[in-house]
Amino acid sequence: MNLALLFEEDFIGGDRVRLTGRRLAHLHSVIRVSTGDRIPVGRVDGDIGTAEVLHLTDTEAELRVSFHLPPPAALPLTLILAMPRPKMLRRVLQTCATLGVKDIWLINSYKVEKSFWQTPWLSEESLRENLTLGLEQARDTVMPRVHIRKLFKPFVEDELPALLAGKRALVAHPGTDTPCPTHLNQPTALCIGPEGGFTPYEVGKLEEAGCGAVHLGARILRVETAVPVLVSRLFDACL
Amino acid sequence: MNLALLFEEDFIGGDRVRLTGRRLAHLHSVIRVSTGDRIPVGRVDGDIGTAEVLHLTDTEAELRVSFHLPPPAALPLTLILAMPRPKMLRRVLQTCATLGVKDIWLINSYKVEKSFWQTPWLSEESLRENLTLGLEQARDTVMPRVHIRKLFKPFVEDELPALLAGKRALVAHPGTDTPCPTHLNQPTALCIGPEGGFTPYEVGKLEEAGCGAVHLGARILRVETAVPVLVSRLFDACL
Repeated sequence: MNLALLFEEDFIGGDRVRLTGRRLAHLHSVIRVSTGDRIPVGRVDGDIGTAEVLHLTDTEAELRVSFHLPPPAALPLTLILAMPRPKMLRRVLQTCATLGVKDIWLINSYKVEKSFWQTPWLSEESLRENLTLGLEQARDTVMPRVHIRKLFKPFVEDELPALLAGKRALVAHPGTDTPCPTHLNQPTALCIGPEGGFTPYEVGKLEEAGCGAVHLGARILRVETAVPVLVSRLFDACL
Repeated sequence: MNLALLFEEDFIGGDRVRLTGRRLAHLHSVIRVSTGDRIPVGRVDGDIGTAEVLHLTDTEAELRVSFHLPPPAALPLTLILAMPRPKMLRRVLQTCATLGVKDIWLINSYKVEKSFWQTPWLSEESLRENLTLGLEQARDTVMPRVHIRKLFKPFVEDELPALLAGKRALVAHPGTDTPCPTHLNQPTALCIGPEGGFTPYEVGKLEEAGCGAVHLGARILRVETAVPVLVSRLFDACL
């Protein structure tokens, strides 16, 4: 937690904030703050700043906050991921939030196991929790939006073309001929398949919608590794 | 497991291999092989190839193997990491192996908690297990070497200068002025600090030994994210 991300419900008055739960526990056990200390804070979807600890007990902390800096720049990236297995989903969401990805689409694919969609990590509350952890790591405040699409074909045929308008569109696909470009630094949409990859049919549909297939080299990466590798390659000037 | 990595003890004769345990379970439950199927295999520190399933039972698989391709190129990188917390160590080791890092130094730092060094994940067997998982993901065979140095100062003063000879040497340090270079694609040594970063004293010692401090931008990354981001930035032509 390199800053404490503050939500509307944390505010108890103009510049006063009350923290409980995870963030309070972190103040006590990791940062080990005392009354009078200052800690970095951010207002969700707003600026970052500092907070002075006014009162501190085992059950709550009261802070006086001021905000004076914009959050770090967002990546101009729409990330379209085949739904990862649940234990990987949490880390991928945190990593995306840390890297500055703001637009995340979780889609179905032939090799996505049906059970993956049952995970409680897809609830609004769990999504927000994991994205918050990722934002706090990066000292960012802007909550990514997560879109869930459990049917591949309607998504690719009916929604994807509009989503790709004005963007460079790529699908990461091991074994294709074109290497992934570098230094794009422009609005981009990037599709990443499941373990085992998109099927040839799915790659064909993504190409029809306007995506160019690119590879990352001989090594096949897990999605949680592919995301930072691809982001770093495409947007090295933005990170 | 995008290939099954084979060790000397798996061979029961010239081109015959017997698999049990984790790799057998994977053949049964994930790949769902039958007798006569072919699967990708690699010989540790050797070539990659294919294996035909000759016999298959619940307790073992017998394979006929042939090797015909070299493994993917290694990264020209010496990675020097402040010892991560144990649950992160496993993932970092797997990620390093997947990305082609072959020379890993785990070192102490002021902000490394003493308890981290007690983890069973540092045993020879556990290191090999996690590195194997990472190699199998990337279809690589060349086992990385892991060096453990529990004292910062003797390592930096007595060993590091020789380790850096002939290499571009960097320490990733948030808040410094110089951005991380891209496209280095040359022998490189890269130091990454613990959660909370190296102390100013430690950065000074690393700079004395020849490392240039570089930053990755405004965002502070966890080590498991920083490794793929940095590798992708430094070696985009090698991955």
